[in-house]
Amino acid sequence: MNSIQNRRLVILTEGRLDLFSAKTAVSVIRYCKEDVVALVDRVNAGNDPESVIGIGKGIPIVPAIGDALHLKPNALLIGIAPPGGMLPPEWRKHITDALRNGLHIISGLHCHLNDDREFRQLANEHHVKIWDVRNPSDEIPLGTGKAKNTRTLRILTVGSDCNIGKMVTSIEITGAARQRGINACFVATGQTGIMIDGSGIAVDHVVSDFISGAAEKLVLDRAQYQLLSIEGQGTIVHPAYSGVTLGLLHGSAPQGLILCHQPTRKTLRHFNDFPILPLSYLIDLYEKLAQPVYPCRVLGISLNCFGMTDRDALQEIQRVERETKLPATDPIKFGVSKFIDSIHPLLP
Amino acid sequence: MNSIQNRRLVILTEGRLDLFSAKTAVSVIRYCKEDVVALVDRVNAGNDPESVIGIGKGIPIVPAIGDALHLKPNALLIGIAPPGGMLPPEWRKHITDALRNGLHIISGLHCHLNDDREFRQLANEHHVKIWDVRNPSDEIPLGTGKAKNTRTLRILTVGSDCNIGKMVTSIEITGAARQRGINACFVATGQTGIMIDGSGIAVDHVVSDFISGAAEKLVLDRAQYQLLSIEGQGTIVHPAYSGVTLGLLHGSAPQGLILCHQPTRKTLRHFNDFPILPLSYLIDLYEKLAQPVYPCRVLGISLNCFGMTDRDALQEIQRVERETKLPATDPIKFGVSKFIDSIHPLLP
Repeated sequence: MNSIQNRRLVILTEGRLDLFSAKTAVSVIRYCKEDVVALVDRVNAGNDPESVIGIGKGIPIVPAIGDALHLKPNALLIGIAPPGGMLPPEWRKHITDALRNGLHIISGLHCHLNDDREFRQLANEHHVKIWDVRNPSDEIPLGTGKAKNTRTLRILTVGSDCNIGKMVTSIEITGAARQRGINACFVATGQTGIMIDGSGIAVDHVVSDFISGAAEKLVLDRAQYQLLSIEGQGTIVHPAYSGVTLGLLHGSAPQGLILCHQPTRKTLRHFNDFPILPLSYLIDLYEKLAQPVYPCRVLGISLNCFGMTDRDALQEIQRVERETKLPATDPIKFGVSKFIDSIHPLLP
Repeated sequence: MNSIQNRRLVILTEGRLDLFSAKTAVSVIRYCKEDVVALVDRVNAGNDPESVIGIGKGIPIVPAIGDALHLKPNALLIGIAPPGGMLPPEWRKHITDALRNGLHIISGLHCHLNDDREFRQLANEHHVKIWDVRNPSDEIPLGTGKAKNTRTLRILTVGSDCNIGKMVTSIEITGAARQRGINACFVATGQTGIMIDGSGIAVDHVVSDFISGAAEKLVLDRAQYQLLSIEGQGTIVHPAYSGVTLGLLHGSAPQGLILCHQPTRKTLRHFNDFPILPLSYLIDLYEKLAQPVYPCRVLGISLNCFGMTDRDALQEIQRVERETKLPATDPIKFGVSKFIDSIHPLLP
């Protein structure tokens, strides 16, 4: 399924097309715009995506799959990642419509659409596939601690919260590194990253004893690259998801971390009684945790200045640089060349 | 299956009856000796378990299931937990023999015996059950961060390595607390603990996004107790299993930790190039990690002085008490009343 050559995607967002709920849709539009033929969203139908999410100019938003068939889509991509990963019931009809019209389905939900009898039957009847991106296709081994023995430079993004810019930062680092002639590979560890890249393992969906093993496998399978830009997950101090974060840190054994943060966010997303911690606390904690498995340093701070003016963002970047003595940037507003400067001397 | 009233167990160890490989067998013998009618182990057949593992005096060791049938067993318990949890192929015959003779099967392996067609068919034919202890029977929710709001005193064991005494310490604390009139509950989080207690969730086997949710559910479901003595898993600095450790810490939101350590162990078990860290580093790291989710303190050090003389053990305990300024003991050699002294003032 991930080998679809000329994919023509319809993305389902169904009234939740915003920068917070539709992370998957927004990221696929940002990095694979040429693959997207339409969005299905009854609430936003008729609008231009640019007016809603700031990107995706010209992609039509239609109320139902049927309204996009003239654009010859070949797959429906589920564009949201709700907490818990469950399928909102009202979306069933869109999925069955898509299957009946011969579209493949690409889903990153925790519940596997392949496990649904009706969906599976329709997919069989119409000779299309359901790609449950979160379902690891390969056998995942237990961790052995061997990622540290590879020569490749492993740079992992970590964060002060979930959904704060780790995937975007890792993708931007990959692109900027390639422009400087570095043989770099983006390593996807979550459903959206996998949808964009076509490969990877959703580490939040493996059996928990195997998190580090999955991260290690991602590194060992790509050890021929000079640079692995590894997508981080969650945060080390999250009441629900910290285990995934730590397993990924220890399994991938990075030499360097980029800490992602959003200056305007004061509490954890969906967990309002947990404040975001000071950067100094997080830097110390990540480095101390990594140390016994493989020592690494935080190399830079990636600031998600969404909603701030460029001037305010620049001021904040300068403030963080003074505070942490580390290079800081907003990858979307100002690029990541500062990070490449820090990474370059460490390359094998 | 966990509701078997008068269980009469045959435990399979098959040549691996020692304190390291047969953790499950040893612990079930230690805490449920009255349930065990025989061990199946060709290599050790004819010996007394006490001469091999120091406990279990008088339990016959036989070479095959057939040799134990006169003792009227009603279940075969798989007594080892190999790394990776896979079933050694030579054990198949023992399992099919047991099923053919009408014994239930109790297994904590990662691979579910219920998924094996031959086993399932035999179980159906002979009207017995296969209890895959690691397979969570209940729906596991995502974490919400709510365990911290319960009034119960939550004491979690943590460690400097895997297989170092966390379960034993948690069970011993439960027993000693009850003897002092405290309404205490052991909370099993691994297959052996579940086999002993009859309830719990194997947190290393849930989907990794749900580790904290599983730990939180264990607490919320038992919030009526004064004291929850929660079995820890792994160690926070383990190259393969740290994610489980951290998810359990944040999900269960303990007020107090007991740090388990083995003085004679210098490197991680099965991971010889990873040294065991100083206690001070571990105490600092566990407390700093817990702090943002729910602040807790390490209340005591549980030392596994296996293989040391009582005199050497006492000396080591005193040395650790001076070094850490915390009460220390070996639960098996000297009991855990020191820990109960520390816990008592914190009770609701």
